[in-house]
Amino acid sequence: MKSSLLYEGKAKKIYQAEGKKGQLVLSYKNDATAFNGEKKATFTGKGRLNNEISARIFPFLHDQGIETHFIERLNETEQLVQQTEIIPLEVVVRNLATGSITKRLGIKEKTMFDPPILELFYKDDDLGDPLINEEHALFLSDVTLSELQEIKSKALEINKQLTKLFAAIGITLVDFKLEFGRLASGCIILADEISPDTCRLWDITTEEKLDKDVFRQGTGDLLEVYEEILKRLEANQ
Amino acid sequence: MKSSLLYEGKAKKIYQAEGKKGQLVLSYKNDATAFNGEKKATFTGKGRLNNEISARIFPFLHDQGIETHFIERLNETEQLVQQTEIIPLEVVVRNLATGSITKRLGIKEKTMFDPPILELFYKDDDLGDPLINEEHALFLSDVTLSELQEIKSKALEINKQLTKLFAAIGITLVDFKLEFGRLASGCIILADEISPDTCRLWDITTEEKLDKDVFRQGTGDLLEVYEEILKRLEANQ
Repeated sequence: MKSSLLYEGKAKKIYQAEGKKGQLVLSYKNDATAFNGEKKATFTGKGRLNNEISARIFPFLHDQGIETHFIERLNETEQLVQQTEIIPLEVVVRNLATGSITKRLGIKEKTMFDPPILELFYKDDDLGDPLINEEHALFLSDVTLSELQEIKSKALEINKQLTKLFAAIGITLVDFKLEFGRLASGCIILADEISPDTCRLWDITTEEKLDKDVFRQGTGDLLEVYEEILKRLEANQ
Repeated sequence: MKSSLLYEGKAKKIYQAEGKKGQLVLSYKNDATAFNGEKKATFTGKGRLNNEISARIFPFLHDQGIETHFIERLNETEQLVQQTEIIPLEVVVRNLATGSITKRLGIKEKTMFDPPILELFYKDDDLGDPLINEEHALFLSDVTLSELQEIKSKALEINKQLTKLFAAIGITLVDFKLEFGRLASGCIILADEISPDTCRLWDITTEEKLDKDVFRQGTGDLLEVYEEILKRLEANQ
């Protein structure tokens, strides 16, 4: 199914899909990294869990009318996606204050953001993915102002839909990171992954963390909490 | 003229103006600080220079139809201004890349920004005046979205006018920081100061730095370059 390796990131490998023009194979790795790669570990089974979780969330978004790069899950750790040129922006949506924003801006943990706060970070490992504003984004990437507004409004709509999805399985969507890509046609669609690597997910009742923070903070078993997310998503279908 | 001290900042003291409701006395200090107060020194005469420079620039802006808090220069180191409640945002306008933005975003020194890049920083010494985006500004301050748009468009207009003023005296306006304040009426006007403490000013021909960077970087005589700015402004009138 896959041919040449195009790119290896911290959590995924990306291959050209064999014989399928404009399609890629995303292969989810078992590696977990945090703090811009400073903390690393391998969890056998993580790749499968993120692949399966993403492969449930993307079709849900399609059902809500949101276009994504996802085509289909191929096997335990791989999925077929549309080829896009990734826009070098990490789009973060925050519903509750936690993590970097609390220290950066002195905001109390668990402060609710209503409306949600949207942040842009410039995807550049050497620079540590710095926070940027819209003017920086226009200067540093090839997006136009109207595309940037489209990306922001899509991110807020995705937040609305994912908040509903997770609430239905007893989970608070605290914050998450999105990446967008440009199709050959020029259209911009949601790309990358949506998983406990890229979302903060708290049990609605107990506030137990069911995401990569258990690895970042060393407070729990990554595989166990990712498995819990997958189990709840499966039970919901 | 002045009565009680209301506030002492790094470079100015602010007094209630005696017998004048809604007016303040700004007293320019001889202290220079850099790197969020980590580097400090005193330069006898700096207060007078910044007072005189600001007292030339604010009236120039008035002549261009831009409202500021400035009323009049009172004496060597003091000026009378309208009382405003300072909005806790530092508004930075950049025409050329230098200083923090080059390191933060990996942008080559002296890259021209056209259109200029506008940045907001949250005025909070304890947090190190962090870069913020518009959503943060709306959350952290009491400005509305339309006020924020007004502030940004005023900052860009001020940039246009100051660029012309400085070009006329052989100086490139590289970047600068503004602060805005709210009058009792609710109107937002330009406040604080405009001086070589808050602007990067380079000789158009030699690119010699005629601003606080000579102190930050220890590359020149602060009083001499501030005096040069004042001399050129005086000669222009």
